[in-house]
Amino acid sequence: MSERKTLDERQQMTDLERLRHSTAHVMATAILRIWPDAQFAYGPPVENGFYYDFDMKHRITPDDFEKIEAEMRKVAKENQRFERVVISRDEAKAMAESGRLGGLSERPENPSRFKLDLIDKIPEGEEISCFQNGEFIDLCAGPHVGSTAKTKHCKLMSVSSSFYMGDEKKGQLQRVYGTAFPTKDELMAHLERLEEAKKRDHRKLGRELQLFHIDEAVGQGLILWKPKGALVRRALQDFITSELDKQGYSQVFTPHIGKLDLYRTSGHFPYYQDSQYAPIPERDTLEKLADENATCDQLINGLESGAYEGYMLKPMNCPHHIKIYASDHHSYRDLPVRLAEFGTVYRWEQSGELGGMTRVRGFTQDDAHLFCTPDQVAAEVQGCLGLVKIVLKTLGMNDYKVRLSLRDPDSDKYVGSPENWDKAEAALREAVQVLGVDYTEELGEAAFYGPKIDFVVKDVIGREWQLGTVQVDYNLPERFDLEYIGADNKAHRPVMIHRAPFGSLERFTGLLIEHFEGKFPTWLAPEQVRVLPISDKFMEAAEEATAKLANAGVRVSLDRSSDKVGAKIRLARLDRVPYMLVIGAREVEEGTVSIRHRDRDDLGSKPIDDFVETIREEIANRSL
Amino acid sequence: MSERKTLDERQQMTDLERLRHSTAHVMATAILRIWPDAQFAYGPPVENGFYYDFDMKHRITPDDFEKIEAEMRKVAKENQRFERVVISRDEAKAMAESGRLGGLSERPENPSRFKLDLIDKIPEGEEISCFQNGEFIDLCAGPHVGSTAKTKHCKLMSVSSSFYMGDEKKGQLQRVYGTAFPTKDELMAHLERLEEAKKRDHRKLGRELQLFHIDEAVGQGLILWKPKGALVRRALQDFITSELDKQGYSQVFTPHIGKLDLYRTSGHFPYYQDSQYAPIPERDTLEKLADENATCDQLINGLESGAYEGYMLKPMNCPHHIKIYASDHHSYRDLPVRLAEFGTVYRWEQSGELGGMTRVRGFTQDDAHLFCTPDQVAAEVQGCLGLVKIVLKTLGMNDYKVRLSLRDPDSDKYVGSPENWDKAEAALREAVQVLGVDYTEELGEAAFYGPKIDFVVKDVIGREWQLGTVQVDYNLPERFDLEYIGADNKAHRPVMIHRAPFGSLERFTGLLIEHFEGKFPTWLAPEQVRVLPISDKFMEAAEEATAKLANAGVRVSLDRSSDKVGAKIRLARLDRVPYMLVIGAREVEEGTVSIRHRDRDDLGSKPIDDFVETIREEIANRSL
Repeated sequence: MSERKTLDERQQMTDLERLRHSTAHVMATAILRIWPDAQFAYGPPVENGFYYDFDMKHRITPDDFEKIEAEMRKVAKENQRFERVVISRDEAKAMAESGRLGGLSERPENPSRFKLDLIDKIPEGEEISCFQNGEFIDLCAGPHVGSTAKTKHCKLMSVSSSFYMGDEKKGQLQRVYGTAFPTKDELMAHLERLEEAKKRDHRKLGRELQLFHIDEAVGQGLILWKPKGALVRRALQDFITSELDKQGYSQVFTPHIGKLDLYRTSGHFPYYQDSQYAPIPERDTLEKLADENATCDQLINGLESGAYEGYMLKPMNCPHHIKIYASDHHSYRDLPVRLAEFGTVYRWEQSGELGGMTRVRGFTQDDAHLFCTPDQVAAEVQGCLGLVKIVLKTLGMNDYKVRLSLRDPDSDKYVGSPENWDKAEAALREAVQVLGVDYTEELGEAAFYGPKIDFVVKDVIGREWQLGTVQVDYNLPERFDLEYIGADNKAHRPVMIHRAPFGSLERFTGLLIEHFEGKFPTWLAPEQVRVLPISDKFMEAAEEATAKLANAGVRVSLDRSSDKVGAKIRLARLDRVPYMLVIGAREVEEGTVSIRHRDRDDLGSKPIDDFVETIREEIANRSL
Repeated sequence: MSERKTLDERQQMTDLERLRHSTAHVMATAILRIWPDAQFAYGPPVENGFYYDFDMKHRITPDDFEKIEAEMRKVAKENQRFERVVISRDEAKAMAESGRLGGLSERPENPSRFKLDLIDKIPEGEEISCFQNGEFIDLCAGPHVGSTAKTKHCKLMSVSSSFYMGDEKKGQLQRVYGTAFPTKDELMAHLERLEEAKKRDHRKLGRELQLFHIDEAVGQGLILWKPKGALVRRALQDFITSELDKQGYSQVFTPHIGKLDLYRTSGHFPYYQDSQYAPIPERDTLEKLADENATCDQLINGLESGAYEGYMLKPMNCPHHIKIYASDHHSYRDLPVRLAEFGTVYRWEQSGELGGMTRVRGFTQDDAHLFCTPDQVAAEVQGCLGLVKIVLKTLGMNDYKVRLSLRDPDSDKYVGSPENWDKAEAALREAVQVLGVDYTEELGEAAFYGPKIDFVVKDVIGREWQLGTVQVDYNLPERFDLEYIGADNKAHRPVMIHRAPFGSLERFTGLLIEHFEGKFPTWLAPEQVRVLPISDKFMEAAEEATAKLANAGVRVSLDRSSDKVGAKIRLARLDRVPYMLVIGAREVEEGTVSIRHRDRDDLGSKPIDDFVETIREEIANRSL
């Protein structure tokens, strides 16, 4: 295969990547045996597998995978050794022109056109390396496993189209993705995990459970929270709010736009504007420019330079919170000031990067900014970590690690005094140690404006998600000239801490849907109880039970359909309702309800008042 | 004075307007006696009084008001009759050229230049009418009171600058505002009301009580809800939410932008765009246009025509809610669907119209859209009115009237079948009658898309505010092609109802601040209780009481200052805290707290647990 890397990069290829890299060659061998006209371009290992791009007459579909895999297994069984061959530039060109390179034999009618181009891209004087397995020889820097025998635990995953070198002018290619593992067990575990992930896909579940909707007419990456999803979000917001109230935070509300000048001060504009929606010019300015026949370029330049005023959708909440802090005089006695907001922000992600709730253009941060004295940083960071810990524990996400990003001691790009950095880094390290979880320290990974802590959480099927962040900031207080009056009666600069335990409500909810497979714990479930009368005869008793639950604040519904109770139970399970209360002759006679749990089946029968008591407690405790 | 109205309009002038109109002439007479060079332009009655625009060398300041008022009282005492004089166009021109018109005598060196212009504006053939009182004669269509004696209860209010005919190219004028009433008592009551309104001004109280902040750097008309204001808003939202939950509404969350296409479908774009922020072009489009040297005019036209895509800050929530409705199939059995959102919307008000929280560019509606069958309109409208009634009653706003806006039976501009209109109008009328409050029917005042009901609320000092609206809509379901499957198994068009009991949280909070003079009822107060230890000796008991209240969910603070208790009480009153708990030797000994109320003074002493019980109940009941 034709991937070119530096020696350093080559040596960094992991054993697993090397195996997958070799499997790409095996796939090419197999495809050529079936369709000898195939012209291969570029085929690297990627996350979770490999792909190879190629061109040929036959359009591959997933129906072809079995045939290709069968041929790949043959190639593996043939136990072909991977041999490195170094050739001259002229030899390489001749082999490509004859169709031999990237093929099984010479095909003079079909020169290896991608390989010819790749040879031209190899700098003069650099060694030209090929790898050969059996009859297949390919331009390739390697490295590879010893022989094709090692590639036998492989699987083709999907086919899509691509462009040579990603350039759509250079014509469309076919791309087949596959994966490979050293053992059958590992391959099977991976495939099961994929199957599981597919079942849990929040886009699929979000649609089925009517949690959210993305509408082309509203815009890509913009989430409409449907009633049931909104109930989950409200439960999450109420949970966070109750913790914030306990911990002395003040909630605020701020608008979703701000003047460009605000972002000039913060440094978000005109820099970083590629990741933001375009600015909104003042209406009068735009009309005046139109009258004067000005160009769009003049408009853009004028907005960037500040000659024209305009607004921007806020990409973050900090400048607005800063303006709230700055609207009062502060004494050291008032600090820390902790301002929190469920603040919806907007960023311009490329459309290719959008997907469901986890990659969006508008999202609501469970954001807060703490304004404190340098001496308070340690205690405040500990408070923030404690909050993240409570959040993760409440949601049963106990498998996580912490990353501490520190400054590069050899660089001078950092804002803030070295003394304050030393103090803050020590404070963060201590906070992480107090937290008592595994952590890694990453030198040079801090932002220029301060050190930070990230939480990386493993979900139930082993995938890692970066969540909560706690970030110290020496930069914005400087840029906005923030002050407090110290005990010495002089003006001092406060330190800011940014923190968001969920990160974003959209992304976190997407993760939760997948983590729980839509089976939210009762306190989060949009519908907590469904009452199922066995027939219309028991409707009155069912209505009574429903009313009792509703009055107790439980989210309950009543299935009034004329379906059999078995069908009602199946539907409630499909809707992931935690509790089903069945009411028939026996229950009416005994004055009870029969309780079924979505996962735990029959829980016996109880008087409705007892059940109300139990479920209220379960909800109040946010039990899992 | 030179106001020109049709006969119809003239007859519509109320007695009070006639009095104020005459008082404007009296003011002109007085000013001319003091500054004979004054040239008068235009002086109509306006809401709450009158003004007259004029030009002269001396710049009037409020210091001059006493002198002018003294002269006005003299003119009133002279009991001059207002006489109507009809003159020919030539006579009128000659009188203006000699400076006589709009003056006390001839001033050939100072022709009446505004009157000359106004004469030119009178259509040929129309009668030219003047009014004379004493030596003053003015071009004026009238009507007037009998004599200047009636104008004696008057008062000058303010002076500002204006432009002739509102056109800044025509040079600056001075404008003096005044008011007049038939009796002294009425004048005094009005002035007291103004004084009261000034004391209650929500901009002043909002700053003093740290409720909200408007920051030039963020943008005019954009409200930053500070921690204390946000607590009021949260209490209001919680209140509305609890009512919505009871009444079967579903809360949703939607983004603050939408594609221009969405608003093309709804009809908000490109029409009505003057009252909206400018659109946000797609980033790629804007860059491409800049590269191609395209003009701003091309950009605007392309966005308007749909050649280029872009986004708009949402001016209302309906299209987003419609997209949520349309994301599921609906049967008549599912209806009504009631979608509610605290949805923040953005509209471009002219900067001159902005002020505090009541005239803003970004505001959060307590919005909902109900999708129902035509047969359900009556019951749903009744539900909406019931909700508005609960809201107003809870806030002690019991003085309101209801306006029912119906279609003009002679016009055909309306969307929706006449049968549906008949049904909806009857439903609205019945709903208002069921509500049992005074209402007026206004023919022709309905929007083209449906009839509506408005609530006009009188605040504590007698000012009227238009609040809650309930609006039936046949138009948007049509434009968005909304459907439900009826009992006949065929597709039908649902009816939409828009409703917002508060209107906007910003405006409503502004009104509440003024209505309560910042003294919010306990359930709304940002700080509900302040604990005031008489000295540090009682700090421990004070902390204990504070903790008990906080644990019970009461918003409590502890005054830890070393001030005397009298000063602490004064400060707490200034902060409008409803309850102050004083703790000293006697209280510690007796195991009680001494309770003071912001308005009701000493309420005796009680064990803290009893007080916790009482205040919890007061808050839970949302007592006034």
